[in-house]
Amino acid sequence: MSRVACGIVCACVTMWPAPMRAQPADLRQRVEAYVSANQRAIVAELVELLSIPNAGGDGDGIAKNAEFLRRMLEGRGFGAEVLQTTGNPLVFGDLRVPGATRTLLIYSHYDGQPVNPADWKQPSPFSPLLRDGRMEDGGREVPGLGGLDRFEPDWRLYARSASDDKSPIVALCAALDALTASGLKPTSNLKVILDGEEEAGSPSLVPAIGRYRSKFSADAMLILDGPVHPSGKPTLVFGARGIVTFTLKVYGPKFALHSGHYGNWVPNPATRLAQLLATFKDDDGRVLVDGFYAGIDPLRPEEQQMLDAVPDDPAQLKALFGISVPENSQRTLQESLQVPSFNIRGLSSAFVGEGARTIIPDSAEAEIDVRLVKETPALAMLEKIRAHIRKQGYHVVSTDPDDATRARYAKIVKMTTSESGTNAYRTSPLLPVSQQLSGALQQVFGEPPVRIRTSGGTVPIAPFIDALGFPAISVPIVNFDNNQHGENENLRLGHFFRGIAIIAGALQM
Amino acid sequence: MSRVACGIVCACVTMWPAPMRAQPADLRQRVEAYVSANQRAIVAELVELLSIPNAGGDGDGIAKNAEFLRRMLEGRGFGAEVLQTTGNPLVFGDLRVPGATRTLLIYSHYDGQPVNPADWKQPSPFSPLLRDGRMEDGGREVPGLGGLDRFEPDWRLYARSASDDKSPIVALCAALDALTASGLKPTSNLKVILDGEEEAGSPSLVPAIGRYRSKFSADAMLILDGPVHPSGKPTLVFGARGIVTFTLKVYGPKFALHSGHYGNWVPNPATRLAQLLATFKDDDGRVLVDGFYAGIDPLRPEEQQMLDAVPDDPAQLKALFGISVPENSQRTLQESLQVPSFNIRGLSSAFVGEGARTIIPDSAEAEIDVRLVKETPALAMLEKIRAHIRKQGYHVVSTDPDDATRARYAKIVKMTTSESGTNAYRTSPLLPVSQQLSGALQQVFGEPPVRIRTSGGTVPIAPFIDALGFPAISVPIVNFDNNQHGENENLRLGHFFRGIAIIAGALQM
Repeated sequence: MSRVACGIVCACVTMWPAPMRAQPADLRQRVEAYVSANQRAIVAELVELLSIPNAGGDGDGIAKNAEFLRRMLEGRGFGAEVLQTTGNPLVFGDLRVPGATRTLLIYSHYDGQPVNPADWKQPSPFSPLLRDGRMEDGGREVPGLGGLDRFEPDWRLYARSASDDKSPIVALCAALDALTASGLKPTSNLKVILDGEEEAGSPSLVPAIGRYRSKFSADAMLILDGPVHPSGKPTLVFGARGIVTFTLKVYGPKFALHSGHYGNWVPNPATRLAQLLATFKDDDGRVLVDGFYAGIDPLRPEEQQMLDAVPDDPAQLKALFGISVPENSQRTLQESLQVPSFNIRGLSSAFVGEGARTIIPDSAEAEIDVRLVKETPALAMLEKIRAHIRKQGYHVVSTDPDDATRARYAKIVKMTTSESGTNAYRTSPLLPVSQQLSGALQQVFGEPPVRIRTSGGTVPIAPFIDALGFPAISVPIVNFDNNQHGENENLRLGHFFRGIAIIAGALQM
Repeated sequence: MSRVACGIVCACVTMWPAPMRAQPADLRQRVEAYVSANQRAIVAELVELLSIPNAGGDGDGIAKNAEFLRRMLEGRGFGAEVLQTTGNPLVFGDLRVPGATRTLLIYSHYDGQPVNPADWKQPSPFSPLLRDGRMEDGGREVPGLGGLDRFEPDWRLYARSASDDKSPIVALCAALDALTASGLKPTSNLKVILDGEEEAGSPSLVPAIGRYRSKFSADAMLILDGPVHPSGKPTLVFGARGIVTFTLKVYGPKFALHSGHYGNWVPNPATRLAQLLATFKDDDGRVLVDGFYAGIDPLRPEEQQMLDAVPDDPAQLKALFGISVPENSQRTLQESLQVPSFNIRGLSSAFVGEGARTIIPDSAEAEIDVRLVKETPALAMLEKIRAHIRKQGYHVVSTDPDDATRARYAKIVKMTTSESGTNAYRTSPLLPVSQQLSGALQQVFGEPPVRIRTSGGTVPIAPFIDALGFPAISVPIVNFDNNQHGENENLRLGHFFRGIAIIAGALQM
């Protein structure tokens, strides 16, 4: 299908005309008309890109993706190159717009999660398959993908990275093509970074800054990744929580003991662990660690308003999850995501079920993740938690206690953390660039976008955002129910086509 | 080896002479002299009995054991028969002693725990093997078992049921033979019940009372089972704790959720379970369930004295177990066993270790056992615990909650128990029969026996003791480190030979 892709590329190698200051009122119509007329070519370019295997560890596939993407950018007038890093290469593009007073750094990634082809309901995750609806709802294959001129909005393309995160790159290119076809151009200089290691935590991104600082300089970053709000509405995301994980292991006797012979006399580590864990939260879900919420200011009225405007449906979520009231009944979902969380993600001690035996276990373990916000960096949070545990009378160790340690301390817990965590990031939605972007989308779609002040999950590029030091905002386009990271990942084409208009709006802000 | 066994049998089919009122001062010497002269025959009878497979489900082996044992008793002058029950048969023996004013019912069992021969360091668990010491300490096989006349006290016989519980039956017969050889006889009428289902919880024992009530009537029961105190001293046990087990399952969302997207908002079941479990005990190990200790009187001075006289070695136990202080530093091990315990024997929620994922788990479970004392029967205890859980705001269910239940209650826990538990039993050590038995052993060994008011573990014959209604006391003889219930079960022969003197003393009380 490279012929088709090449046709698009050739349409936009012209130089940009002088920038327009204001977005035309009919931008949406113009982009939609372009997309409608060019569905076949746009989808063909996406299908071709999805056909190149992109597991992060597949060096050959990664190199092919990088070169294909470099040519895609080059075809849109970018100065495009493949930048070597300490890991997989970055694809970099630079497009100067005469008269532009702002430079946007657009981030996306081209690597995908590892695949187990046997789990996919199609011959290969890298042979895109079109369905006339969501597979789980009975969507069936639409044959003849390469020969179709029209695609229904509810049709879905099934392939690894269909939504995470190749389609936003194709949508960006299509948006530029659409602007060109309409006699328009971006209102900002554009730089593009396409990451080849996002699914592995983007380990080479921050180190690359030292080498490519001037290339990466910009006034703001737009992140093309992630799904839109479950309501389906156009969405902007201004931040993401960070995360730090750790394990607590409380010690009982050196080996499991008969609960009859020693029960009441030898301390039970599962009871101790339960008592320790119980000290972390009150009954309303408020975390009792000193300083857990330190530095977090109350929301400003505009921020509260923004949170309140998010069209969450708590009744629907509660029914879906089978819960009657949230942890804290006074807090909305969006409000909950503005503060750090303390989550027990695993518990274990001896056996439950069939294997249960009448013993005092030798130890009890808990796995914990703490989601962080901008005001609560990972390492400081771990220190506060360690202090809290000490306050409960525990001797905190980092390796299994030896006999002398066991003999000396009544309460011993091992606290281990495998990594230093990922900090949160947050761009104020009140900054000019934030407001300009919101305003641009409002103008395109006739209503303000859903604005997420902080998304609950964690993104690996947070340290990159931190290191670059300029504002970053996510502009997601894909459907929420995309099976991201799992088998049968998919992209709803209606979301994809609308995403081209979303990105065009952002480029015209 | 039946020829040898038969030789012993033939030595004691004479009628008993008139009872002697007082135990002779040299009883120990007389028994020891008999045992010393007859080691070969005594061990041969034990080896022959151990060679008959006795897993409870092996009907053929069980029948062979029963008939062999019936003949053993018959050979000692008992009216002996095999009694059919709803399960495996009982072997019953009745020996009237002219002039005796007391009847003792002696209980032992002939079935053994299931075996996995591959785990044993010998060709078969039913081919007894002699070692010159404890296998774990390097004890090596002593060849020519059938032809030996002398056995060292530290030698051990390895076979299933070597200690649990065939050797006490052989020791009882040898004790009777030794008395006869010394011109002595028991001071009580004797009835013997040999159980064929103890390892399966003795389900047919209580039902058998209805059918055989007059046969089972007696003034007191002696239980020949279990090990002596770890100090190795002769021991009497006046009671055993009961047990009731249950499972608690706390519910979170219907399926595991992303801890970033919903952490702080969707309740975490592991946190809830920890908070619930933490309410059960204070930091000193005192259980906080209303009425948990109800009806338990303070110890009487004689009882306290008895507990204090038990030669436990807490420093050695603490070093062995790797603990610095017991759950309640004010309580000795023996004191701890006089009250019910609350023991978390298993915990589970989602995953720990390699499999840990950043999720809010869908549920969290705890397995619990409560050891009971005579004053706290199982079913009443379960009710108190259920009330305690309700007091913490939980809706208690017995099956997984449906959507309507989930929608109605914020806190839901499933409490399930697979059985109705086993009650404790306790015979007052201050009863005349208790004091007579202690006195008899003191006279034989020159010092009082270790007297255990309540052993921590649970015995399945507690309901049988309860139903019969007369006092029961355990007279253990075997070594503590016998690998009971495991592979490589063994009997230290020094304990076995001394056990013959212990039982002879009991028969002469």
